[in-house]
Amino acid sequence: MGNFKGHALPGSFFLLFGLWWSVKYPLKYSCRKNKNACYLGSRAGFQRLEFVEGIIKAVFALIGMVAEQFVPDGPHLKLYNYEEKHWDHLMNWQHATMYLFYGISGLVDIVAHGTNALPVAMDRMMLSLAVFIEGFLFCYHLHGRAMLDVHVHQLLLFAIFGAAVCIFLEVFFRGSIVLEMLRTSLCILQGSWFWQIGFVLYPPNGSPEWNQMDHTNMMFLTMCYCWHYAFAFLILAVNYTIVSCIVEA
Amino acid sequence: MGNFKGHALPGSFFLLFGLWWSVKYPLKYSCRKNKNACYLGSRAGFQRLEFVEGIIKAVFALIGMVAEQFVPDGPHLKLYNYEEKHWDHLMNWQHATMYLFYGISGLVDIVAHGTNALPVAMDRMMLSLAVFIEGFLFCYHLHGRAMLDVHVHQLLLFAIFGAAVCIFLEVFFRGSIVLEMLRTSLCILQGSWFWQIGFVLYPPNGSPEWNQMDHTNMMFLTMCYCWHYAFAFLILAVNYTIVSCIVEA
Amino acid sequence: MGNFKGHALPGSFFLLFGLWWSVKYPLKYSCRKNKNACYLGSRAGFQRLEFVEGIIKAVFALIGMVAEQFVPDGPHLKLYNYEEKHWDHLMNWQHATMYLFYGISGLVDIVAHGTNALPVAMDRMMLSLAVFIEGFLFCYHLHGRAMLDVHVHQLLLFAIFGAAVCIFLEVFFRGSIVLEMLRTSLCILQGSWFWQIGFVLYPPNGSPEWNQMDHTNMMFLTMCYCWHYAFAFLILAVNYTIVSCIVEA
Amino acid sequence: MGNFKGHALPGSFFLLFGLWWSVKYPLKYSCRKNKNACYLGSRAGFQRLEFVEGIIKAVFALIGMVAEQFVPDGPHLKLYNYEEKHWDHLMNWQHATMYLFYGISGLVDIVAHGTNALPVAMDRMMLSLAVFIEGFLFCYHLHGRAMLDVHVHQLLLFAIFGAAVCIFLEVFFRGSIVLEMLRTSLCILQGSWFWQIGFVLYPPNGSPEWNQMDHTNMMFLTMCYCWHYAFAFLILAVNYTIVSCIVEA
Repeated sequence: MGNFKGHALPGSFFLLFGLWWSVKYPLKYSCRKNKNACYLGSRAGFQRLEFVEGIIKAVFALIGMVAEQFVPDGPHLKLYNYEEKHWDHLMNWQHATMYLFYGISGLVDIVAHGTNALPVAMDRMMLSLAVFIEGFLFCYHLHGRAMLDVHVHQLLLFAIFGAAVCIFLEVFFRGSIVLEMLRTSLCILQGSWFWQIGFVLYPPNGSPEWNQMDHTNMMFLTMCYCWHYAFAFLILAVNYTIVSCIVEA
Repeated sequence: MGNFKGHALPGSFFLLFGLWWSVKYPLKYSCRKNKNACYLGSRAGFQRLEFVEGIIKAVFALIGMVAEQFVPDGPHLKLYNYEEKHWDHLMNWQHATMYLFYGISGLVDIVAHGTNALPVAMDRMMLSLAVFIEGFLFCYHLHGRAMLDVHVHQLLLFAIFGAAVCIFLEVFFRGSIVLEMLRTSLCILQGSWFWQIGFVLYPPNGSPEWNQMDHTNMMFLTMCYCWHYAFAFLILAVNYTIVSCIVEA
Repeated sequence: MGNFKGHALPGSFFLLFGLWWSVKYPLKYSCRKNKNACYLGSRAGFQRLEFVEGIIKAVFALIGMVAEQFVPDGPHLKLYNYEEKHWDHLMNWQHATMYLFYGISGLVDIVAHGTNALPVAMDRMMLSLAVFIEGFLFCYHLHGRAMLDVHVHQLLLFAIFGAAVCIFLEVFFRGSIVLEMLRTSLCILQGSWFWQIGFVLYPPNGSPEWNQMDHTNMMFLTMCYCWHYAFAFLILAVNYTIVSCIVEA
Repeated sequence: MGNFKGHALPGSFFLLFGLWWSVKYPLKYSCRKNKNACYLGSRAGFQRLEFVEGIIKAVFALIGMVAEQFVPDGPHLKLYNYEEKHWDHLMNWQHATMYLFYGISGLVDIVAHGTNALPVAMDRMMLSLAVFIEGFLFCYHLHGRAMLDVHVHQLLLFAIFGAAVCIFLEVFFRGSIVLEMLRTSLCILQGSWFWQIGFVLYPPNGSPEWNQMDHTNMMFLTMCYCWHYAFAFLILAVNYTIVSCIVEA
C-alpha cells in the first residue's frame, strides 16, 4: 500500500461513509423534529439503513482484506518466509488486520439490527474498537520513517482516536445528534486526509517530491489539516441545510 | 504576532469574554433561583444574548483573520513564495486558522440561537473544537524556541485544553453553573496569561529582557500562573457577589 | 516467575475468568430479556454467583501469594537480606502485591454480595483498582529489559488499563451489557496474551529463541495481539450464541 | 520544607482529613440507610459538618501559608532579591501557593454550606482544583533532583491526580459513596506517603541514608506505595465496620 492508490482507496471509503452520514444523521434529526411532515424515514426505516450499512461495511472490509492479500506483490496468505527466515509482507498483513476489525464491526451491525439477539449498543462499541485498533496499529507502524511521513500519519491519529472516543461516548449517549455530527466530521476529515497523505508522500503525475526534512512543510501540513477539518464542516453544513429544507418543504 | 501587541490583543479578547461571562452566568443562575424577583433576564432574553455573543465572536474572528493577513508584514493571502520556494508567513496563517475556527463557532452560535434549525448543543461542541484547535496549533508552534518561551506557552495549554474539555462536558451537562464558572475562570486565566507572556517575552518600555535559560525563572512563572488563576477566581467572586446582591435586592 | 509456567499460570486464571464471564453475562442478559421463559437464573441467583466468584477470586489470590512466597527460589517472607544489604526477590514480592489487591477485591465481593453492609458498587471499584494496580506495578517492572520483552509487556498494558477504565465505568453504568462484554473480551485477551508472552520469551520444548532485537518481530507481535483480540471476540460470539439458543429454546 | 518535618506536617494534615472522612462518609451512608434508627446525623447536621470542615481547611491553609513565609529561613514575603538579582525562596513560595488554593477551597466550602448564595457543587470543583494545582506545582518542582527523590514524588502524583479526577467526578455524581470512599482512600494514601517520603529522604535519628541511585530501592518503594494503599483500605474497612455497628446497634 506504499503508493498513491493505497492511500486514495481507504480515503475514498472513509469519505463515502462520511458523506453518507452527513446526509443520514441530519435526515434522522429533521424527521424526529417534524414527526408529521416526514414521509422520508421512520424508525424502522433507519434501523434497516443501519442493517444495510453493516452489510456494506462488511463487504468493503472483505474486499480490502482480499486485495491486501492477493495484489501482485502481496503475501498471498503467506505469513513467514521459512527459506529466508523473516516475516513476509507485514505491512499488508497489518492493513488486512485493520480491515478485519471493520469487518467484525460490520457483522455486529448486521446481527444487532437484523435480529434482536444482540443489544443494539454493541454496534457502537465494536465500531469504536475497530477505529481504536486502526489507530493502535498505526502507532506501531511508523517506526523509522522520515519526519514528514511520521508527522502526516500522526495528524491522522487525532482524527482516528477522536472518532474512537466519540463513538464510545455514543454507547452511553446513543442518538445524540451532536456526537453523530462530530463522528461524521472526523470521518470526512480522515477520508480527505488520506488523500492528502497520498498527494504529499507519493505525488502523482511526476510532481516534485516534498522535502521530508523541511520544518516549514510540517508546519504547513499541520495547518492544512485544520483546513481539511473546516472543509469537512462546510460539507456537513451544506448537506444539513439541503436536507433540512427538503424535509421541511 | 511575535511582539507585545500580538499577545495583548488576543489576551484582551479572552479577558473581555471572560469578564462578560463572569457577569452573565451568575446573573443567569440568580435569575433562575429567584424566579419572581428577577426582571433582568428571562429565558428568551438569555437566548438572545447567546445570539449576540455569536455575532460578536464571529466579528472579532473576522477582524483577527483580516488583521493577520493584511498587517504590513503579513502574507496578504499569499501562501507560497514561488520565487524563493518556501512557505510565506506561516505564523500569520496559523493564527488566522485559529481565528477561523472561532469564526465558525460564532456562526454556529448565530444559527443555533437565531433559528431553530440546529440543535442548540452544537454551539458548545463547536466552541470546544475551536478551543481544541487553538491548543492543537499551539502544540506544533513551539518547535525550536528558547526554554522559557516554550514553557510559558505550555502553561497556556493547560488553560486551553482544560477549557476544551470543560466545554465538551457542557454538551452533556448543559446549563451546569459549575462548568460555566470553570470555563469562565479558564477564559480569564487565558486572557491574563497572554498579557503575562507579552510582558515576559517582549518587555515593553525598554525593561531588561528575562533570562530565557534561568531555571528559577521557569519555576517562578509556573507559580505566577497559579496566582493568575487565583486572581481569576477573585474577579469571579467579586462579580458573583455584586450580581447576586443586585438581583436579590 | 521468569519462566514459561510463571506466565501460563496467571494467563490460565484470566482465561478461566474470561471464559466464565463470557457465559455468565450473556446468560444474565438473555434471562433479563425473556423473563418468563428463563428458569436458569434469577436476580438472587446471580447475586449468589457474584458471592461465589468473590470467594474463588480470594482463594486464587491467596494461592498466588503463598506460591510466590514459598516456591523453592522464593523469598519465604524475607524482604531484606541484611547480610548482603540488598532487597530480596523483589519480583516475587511485586507479584504477591498484585495478588493481594485481587484478594482484597475478592473480599469486598464477598462482603458486598453476602451481606448488605456495603454498597454493591464497591465491588466494581475494588476490581478496577486491583486491575489498575496490576498495570501500575507492570509499568515499573520492565526497566532495563530487552526491546521485545518490554514490547510484549507494554501491549499487555493496553488490555489491563482498558479493563481498569471499563470496570470503573461500570461503577456508574452498572449492569450495562456492553461494558460487561468489553470487560470479558479484555480479560480473555489478557489471559491469552500471557500465554503468548510465555511462548515468545521462554519457548518451551527447545524451540529456538526469538530475536529480541528484530524490529519485524515487534511488528508481528503487535498484529498478533490484535488477532488475539479478534479471537477473544470469536469466543464471546460463540458462547453468546450458544447461551441465547439454550435460554430461548 | 526540605526536611523531615516539612513532609510530616502536610502528611499529618492529609492523614487527619482522610481519617475523619473515613468516619464521616460511612456514618452518612449508614444514616441514609437506617433512616429511623439514626439519631446521630441528619441532613442539616452533615451540612453543618461541611461548613466546619471548610473553616478548619481554611485555617490550616492560613497556618501553612504563614509558616512557609515566616519560618526562620523563609522568604518573609520577599519574592525577589534585588541585590543579588535572583528569586528568593521559590520553594516556600510554591508551597504557600499550594496552601492558598486549599484556603480558597475552604472559603468556598464556608460560603456554599453557610449561606445559600453559591451552588453547593462549587465546593467539590474548588477542592478538585486545589488538588490539581498541588499536583501541577509538584510536576514542575522536581527538576534536577536525584532519581529516588523524583520517583517518590512521582508516585505521590498518582494519588494527587487520582484524587483530583475523583473529586471532579463528584461534581456530577454528588453523594456517591463509592467516589467518597475512593477519595478518602487516596487522601489517607497521600498522607501516609508524605510520611514515607520524609523517612526515605531525611531519615530521622541518624539512620543511614538511602542509596538514591539504587534501582532496587525504586522497585521496593513502588511496591511499598501499593502496601500503603492496601493499608489505607484496611483503615477504611475498620472504621466502616465500627461505624456501621454503632449506627445499627
